[in-house]
Amino acid sequence: MPQQDRAYATREAILRAAAREFDLVGYDRTSLTAVLTRAGLTKGAFYFHFASKEAVAGALIEYQHDLWVELRQRWHGRELDPLHTLIGMISESADRMADDVVLRAGVRLIADREVGYPGVPNAHLMWEKMVSAYVAEAGARGHLREGVDPDAVARALSGATLGARLISSATTGCADFPGRVRELLALVLPSVANDAWLSAADDRR
Amino acid sequence: MPQQDRAYATREAILRAAAREFDLVGYDRTSLTAVLTRAGLTKGAFYFHFASKEAVAGALIEYQHDLWVELRQRWHGRELDPLHTLIGMISESADRMADDVVLRAGVRLIADREVGYPGVPNAHLMWEKMVSAYVAEAGARGHLREGVDPDAVARALSGATLGARLISSATTGCADFPGRVRELLALVLPSVANDAWLSAADDRR
Repeated sequence: MPQQDRAYATREAILRAAAREFDLVGYDRTSLTAVLTRAGLTKGAFYFHFASKEAVAGALIEYQHDLWVELRQRWHGRELDPLHTLIGMISESADRMADDVVLRAGVRLIADREVGYPGVPNAHLMWEKMVSAYVAEAGARGHLREGVDPDAVARALSGATLGARLISSATTGCADFPGRVRELLALVLPSVANDAWLSAADDRR
Repeated sequence: MPQQDRAYATREAILRAAAREFDLVGYDRTSLTAVLTRAGLTKGAFYFHFASKEAVAGALIEYQHDLWVELRQRWHGRELDPLHTLIGMISESADRMADDVVLRAGVRLIADREVGYPGVPNAHLMWEKMVSAYVAEAGARGHLREGVDPDAVARALSGATLGARLISSATTGCADFPGRVRELLALVLPSVANDAWLSAADDRR
């Protein structure tokens, strides 16, 4: 392996080992020693790539941020109606979270920082605003039941997906997260979309 | 104040001060010094009542446990139909959580232990089983839509209330938790209860 490839592989091994620890026990309880043991690396190899545990966490948070941007742009580009776009994005996010421990760790890191302590949870509020905007757009296109409040739907969905992820992680290592998210959408959607949208969606299946 | 009353007041002051710290930053980040400063007490006064930070946390967890038992028994005793009992219990729990920092701390302590790390979240699973049993009982009485799976409803509601509590705590100190829970129930209930139950519930309002 050329030196550059080896350096890349080492960096990836560190990220993956750190992701596994962060995903299991969170940032505070993750020790550098545990990460190095898991990756089979020395402190020297670690510090060649990262200045600190905090720096690895930063790289993982950046990774999840880039993935969401890509996912949002891709679904936006499909030009489906707003509710289908939203359902598609939420379902794909759940599938990826179940499959990708690196993504899961980044999401946990950012959520732990934001929801465990008082303050303004920026990433969370951005997500809530995005959901609300899609639901409002669905309203403008005449797809909603009367009286549906896009902000209320966004609050309910964002809380519900956060809680589902936490429980799914603690009980099944996130394996049942996609199923939990689909159950949730199936329960909430009939109160949000009107009969015309729902029967058109049924026909398309 | 007689000595016994004074001792009782000191114990309460410690519990309340510790509850405020645990509620804000969680168990791991709560320092005994911060609790003592908040309560205006010395280490000596603290150790007269509690052996450790862990012991105070234990007392708070016990407090929330006793409250749930009382609340469940009281709602059970009203002999309402199962869905009304469930909605009443969930709504009252949310109201109490918003009002009572001691309760809130106990709930956070037990949830942090259970959902932040891999393992079997017993308190959570018990709650899920309870919700599932009420929904199944509603099914037996003919109050549900066709095809409703009580376990799926329980999974969705328990995840959703956990997430709503975390977000509400981080953003509003739990003040908007009752509103979030009612929004959630309003979104989920029409997919769970059948039209007969829903219109009877509307009439009763």
